[in-house]
Parts: sequence; C-alpha cells; structure tokens
Amino acid sequence: MPASETAERTLVAEVIAIGDELTTGQRLDTNTQWLAQRLTDAGLLVRYHTTVADDLQANIEVFQAAAARANVVVATGGLGPTADDLTRDAMAAAAGVPLINDPDLAAHIESIFTSRGRVMPPQNLRQAQLPEHARPIPNPGGTAPGVDQTVGGCRLFALPGVPAEMHDMWAATVAPAITAMTGRTRVTRHWLVKCFGAGESTVEGMLGGLIARGREPLVGITASQATITLRVTASGETDADCYAAMAPTLDEIRTKLGELVYAEQPGGEEEIELHQVVVELLRERGQTLGVSEEEPQGLLAQWLASADVGGEVGGVIVTDASASGATGSLADYLIAVKAGLDGSVPVAVQTPAGSVSKDILLIGHPSIHRALVAKHALNLLRLELLKQS
Amino acid sequence: MPASETAERTLVAEVIAIGDELTTGQRLDTNTQWLAQRLTDAGLLVRYHTTVADDLQANIEVFQAAAARANVVVATGGLGPTADDLTRDAMAAAAGVPLINDPDLAAHIESIFTSRGRVMPPQNLRQAQLPEHARPIPNPGGTAPGVDQTVGGCRLFALPGVPAEMHDMWAATVAPAITAMTGRTRVTRHWLVKCFGAGESTVEGMLGGLIARGREPLVGITASQATITLRVTASGETDADCYAAMAPTLDEIRTKLGELVYAEQPGGEEEIELHQVVVELLRERGQTLGVSEEEPQGLLAQWLASADVGGEVGGVIVTDASASGATGSLADYLIAVKAGLDGSVPVAVQTPAGSVSKDILLIGHPSIHRALVAKHALNLLRLELLKQS
Repeated sequence: MPASETAERTLVAEVIAIGDELTTGQRLDTNTQWLAQRLTDAGLLVRYHTTVADDLQANIEVFQAAAARANVVVATGGLGPTADDLTRDAMAAAAGVPLINDPDLAAHIESIFTSRGRVMPPQNLRQAQLPEHARPIPNPGGTAPGVDQTVGGCRLFALPGVPAEMHDMWAATVAPAITAMTGRTRVTRHWLVKCFGAGESTVEGMLGGLIARGREPLVGITASQATITLRVTASGETDADCYAAMAPTLDEIRTKLGELVYAEQPGGEEEIELHQVVVELLRERGQTLGVSEEEPQGLLAQWLASADVGGEVGGVIVTDASASGATGSLADYLIAVKAGLDGSVPVAVQTPAGSVSKDILLIGHPSIHRALVAKHALNLLRLELLKQS
Repeated sequence: MPASETAERTLVAEVIAIGDELTTGQRLDTNTQWLAQRLTDAGLLVRYHTTVADDLQANIEVFQAAAARANVVVATGGLGPTADDLTRDAMAAAAGVPLINDPDLAAHIESIFTSRGRVMPPQNLRQAQLPEHARPIPNPGGTAPGVDQTVGGCRLFALPGVPAEMHDMWAATVAPAITAMTGRTRVTRHWLVKCFGAGESTVEGMLGGLIARGREPLVGITASQATITLRVTASGETDADCYAAMAPTLDEIRTKLGELVYAEQPGGEEEIELHQVVVELLRERGQTLGVSEEEPQGLLAQWLASADVGGEVGGVIVTDASASGATGSLADYLIAVKAGLDGSVPVAVQTPAGSVSKDILLIGHPSIHRALVAKHALNLLRLELLKQS
C-alpha cells in the first residue's frame, strides 16, 4: 500500500476484535477480514489488526494505541449486555471521559423488549451507555447500538460482533461516514497474476525492481504450495482509473514472466488454480484428458473432477501404471504420475504430437510434495496445450 | 483467563502475524488461531493478537510493544527471501541490535539448493541473517530458519507463515522452549456447556455471580444465533486437575440452568448443535421423526439430514402443510413449521402422547430468523423427548 508514502490524504486504519473466544483460539475470527477488505476497498491503508482478550486494562491500552497510530479504527465485539462486554467502558477510559447513560437509547432498548411482550433484563441498560460526546450507531437488527467516537485525530467506530448486525451497520453508517471523511469515493483495486514454474525469489529477480516498497502501483508477491501470486494494487477515483494505472505494470509483468503466468483475475474472488486453467484449455479445444495416477484418489483426479463438473474433458482415471497405452486410445492427452515421493518424481505427458516428461524435484515441506508433483504435471500439460493452439 | 490475576506465574503471550495479504483482508489468517490454541493449552494467557502490514517502521513498533507487554511472543510470516519479508530487520531494529550474517546458516541454505542441483538465488542469503545474540530455529521443511530472540523480559519466536513449516517448528523447538520457561507442563482445559431457550442476559442473570472476571475457574458466555455457549476454563498440572477444578462450577451451572442445557463437550472440538442432540435422542429410543416444512429445502430438513446420515430417524420431509395427518402414521414424531417470518411463527410438535405448540418471537437480525424458528422447533421436540424417557 504505497499511497501512505506518496499521498498524504490516505488514511491509516486499524481493525480491533475483542473477546477471549478469539484470543484463546476457540473461535476463528472472520469479522476482521471482512472489515479489512471493506476498509481497503474504501481507499484506506489498513496497517494493523489487533485482537484483545476481555480484559479492561488491556482494552483501554489497545484503544489508546490505535487512536494514536490510526486515523480510522473499526472495532467489533464487546457490546453485549453481559459483564465481560467491556468495549464501552474501554473507549470511555481510553479517551479519559465518563460513560453517560443515554435516556433515548434506554427507552429504545426497552421498547424492543416490550414490543415483543418481554421484560428487559436490567443488564441490558448497560447497552444504553455511551462515552461522553460519542454518538450511537443505530442497530436495526439487535439491541446493541454501536459507538462512534472521535479521539484526537482518530475516528473510532465500535460495532457488535454478530456478523449480520455488523454488516448492516457498516453499510448504513460507517461506510458513508468514511466516504465523508475522505471527501471522495476513492477506491482501491487489486489485480492478481497467478504464476507457476519458478520459485518466489527467482520470480522476484525476473521482475527487477517491480516489487519495491512505496512503488505505485504496488506489486506484492506471495507463494503458496509453489504457486506464486503477484498482487498489483492501485487507487483512484473510479475502477477504470485503478485499472488504467495498473496497465503498464501488468504489461511489464507479462513480458518478463511469459509462460510462467497461467491466469489473471481481479482481487477478492476465489483464486484460480492451475487445474481449472487446464480444464478450460481442453474444453476450448474440445479435447479430452486421461490421468494415470498410481495413488488411489490422487490429487490430480480430485482436482480435475472438481473443475470438470460435466465430465466433458476427462473422467478417464486409471491407477494402473501400464495403462498409458490403453488410455491413449481413449483420450487426446494423458498425464502419468508415479506414487513415489522420494527425492524426485518423474511425470510424463502424452500428447497427439508425442510425449514430454520431467523429473520434479521435491522441495519444500513433505506435506506439500503431492501437490507440487500434481501442479508440475498440470503445468507441463498446459505448456503443451499452448504450443498446439 | 483469571490466572493472570490470581497466579503470578502465568505468562502473558502475544501472537503477531505479518503481511499485507492479511491486513488488506485478501487472505484469511488461520495461523494465529492455531498458535493461540497451542499457547493457551500450554498454560499461557494469550492477551493480544496483532497483525501488521509489510511496513518496516510499523513492524518495529509492533515488536517493541509486544516485547513490553508480553512474556512470550510468537510471530508468523515475513521470513521469506524477498524484499517485503521484513521480520528479521524489524526484530533487530526493535531490539536496537544489528543484523548479523550467520555463516553456518548461509552454508546450510546454499546446501539445500545445491543438493537439488540448483543455484541459490542471491536473495536467499537474506535468510542467513539474524539479529545479534538471537538463535536460529531449525526449519527441516524449508529454507527459512526461524528466530529465537530474548528482549528484556520477553522471549520472541519468529516462525515462517507456511503452515506446515510453522507447525513442525512449533513442535520441535518452540513448545519445548515454552515448557522449559514455565518450568512445568501446566495445561489449560476448556469445557463447553451448550444452552438453548433463553437470552444471553437472562442466562447470565440465572447464573448469579458465576460470570465474573478473575473467578477461578473462569466462566465465559457467548451467543450465536440464539444458542448460548458457556465456556469454563481451568488450569492445572494435568487434565484431571483441570476437570476436577471445574466440577463444582459445572454442577452449579447444571442446577441453575436445568433443561436449558442441551449438550456438554470439551473445548477445541466442533461444537454440538441442537439438531445433532435431537437425532441422537431419537436414535437411542429407536424412534423416527417427520418434518413438515412449508419452505422447500428448509433449514430443518438440511440440518436433520446432515446429522441423520443413515436415515434411521427421519427422512420424511413434506412441504404440504396439510400432511401432518399422513406423516403422523409414518413417524413417531412430527415437527411442523410454517414459512411465514413476520412477527412470530407458530411451530408444533406432534408426539405419541399428543401435541405441543409454541409461538416463536422473531427477535434479532432478520438473517437469523429461519435458524431461530428451526432451533425453537427442535428444542420443543427435545423437551418432549426428555419427558418421555
């Protein structure tokens, strides 16, 4: 996210998630990712996420640190009616102001209960308290209002941890407030370039200085099970501005990486895998694929079945190593993979024009070796398909 | 986590995750949860998680803050060979020491490449650098060694972000080091009491002072789609010590909540849902269930099918509201649920002894209303099954 360094108007954001069930690992936190995506898309630079246990002093310090280092803070959780819901107390103490009972909020919360023929438990009155000078954020789906508080140069929004309530309150109140703060509807867009066939540091070397901090557009690189993902990020007034700003960088990447690039896609969607590309190439050509895998229910078979739902391009899965002859007559292409996972594994691709093979070196952690071999086999086939197009 | 307040020996822990792909929300962070579970189970109090972007100054400040507020820090990510892998640099700068090239590490990393017939890209030498006085953590599955550094009263462990490598290095090096620090194999165990039929603040009120900060064992309360989970936490030398310490508290909870409790289970496992309990009660009794749901593919049908894999207790799913007579002859029990979701919804359970019904008030966010109705219907049946046992 280079904008912070090159444009003073970019706001730094922090997400705070609150609860022992998160800090102890009992529950996986997905709220933080949801908020981080939306803050990023609103053009903010999300530099920190903090998760903190249900401990008042720790919460106070976390809110103070966030208010000092971020312009926008969105917190989730800790707004319920029970004794371990401490967000309101922490926000007040962090700002050095008292908690004030809001009679309108109290009446509203009580009306929710009475409209359902219920008596409000006295604990729920805690939800009618706000730090002095803070504003409530309406919660159409529950009793816990959010809190909108300004501390120095920082705007803090506290939302409930219930995802559906958090989503609605983000859309109705927080997103418009952030747009008003930035004074524009600035957007940030990501474009992913998916690569296979070289290691992370080799790819970085091929790209020269493209992966440099502070560059605009920013190019990030990550590796997962030998698949390399380049992530290009640009901000602008519109989507079109973002993609126009990326275009020269993307052209440079394509030129430098050539056939290492197997797919491109916008950020935020499910990432495209090599097997999906291979199935699509076969489908375009109206051709079929057989797989000879010595492992029962091998990875290749699973992956191809998941991509080839209609069974148009494959379905010939054989586990007999001597079956390549038999299969050759049934399918246009054949991938043969051995089961052994010691040192290196030979993979072979039989095509209408002949056959190619490669010894795959087993690098990285043993738990990814099967995936590594399967991906190399798919990539070998992909390169053959591209030659014959 | 009351131990911090009542026993001085409890170590406070923090997990740090590093990477733009996490702070922007591009990727969901599961490493932090994995580490938090293990630190908690090792008897440490995980009070903070921090996620930070690939920004050197921000990383330095995050490591400094963690070293000041925690006794044990485990970081994940940022140890790769590329320019945006900043963990080594940040740890050195945070401690005010230089990064030193470790010739043994350099030789080891180069040998990994040469043993595979490859030339080491020069960038990989970055992975042979360590903050002065820090110790490397061996990485049997990859080229990136970890870092074990002591700063003041804090022990920092930095591990790669690749999950398989992180898991192995935790088990081989970090877990034994933490056991040596605590001087004992102290464990923390959790027990969950799953409840349905009353709101969160009502349940808290019924439990009197049980949900109080600093109590030992600690009782936490969370609500998700009207299911209330109580989480009891105790620490001790052994599992048996933990469960013995919880027993009086659990007895008190059972007495105070009675039939609101539908299941109990150890922490860390997939949580038991109401429909699983209902299917199990029917299976024990050799009885069957019909469901009349006005919605096609209603939630009840889905849930029951997922729990009743063999189809022994159900399978009669009808969507005709007038089918209760017809179904009554096919199954021992019938649940009938209307499709309307406005204000309140009547649910009915027909049993061999007669029939019961209840109007379900639609509280909370509209997106959970279907689940709320389905759960109330299941709970009505559960209470009938308990009466007839």
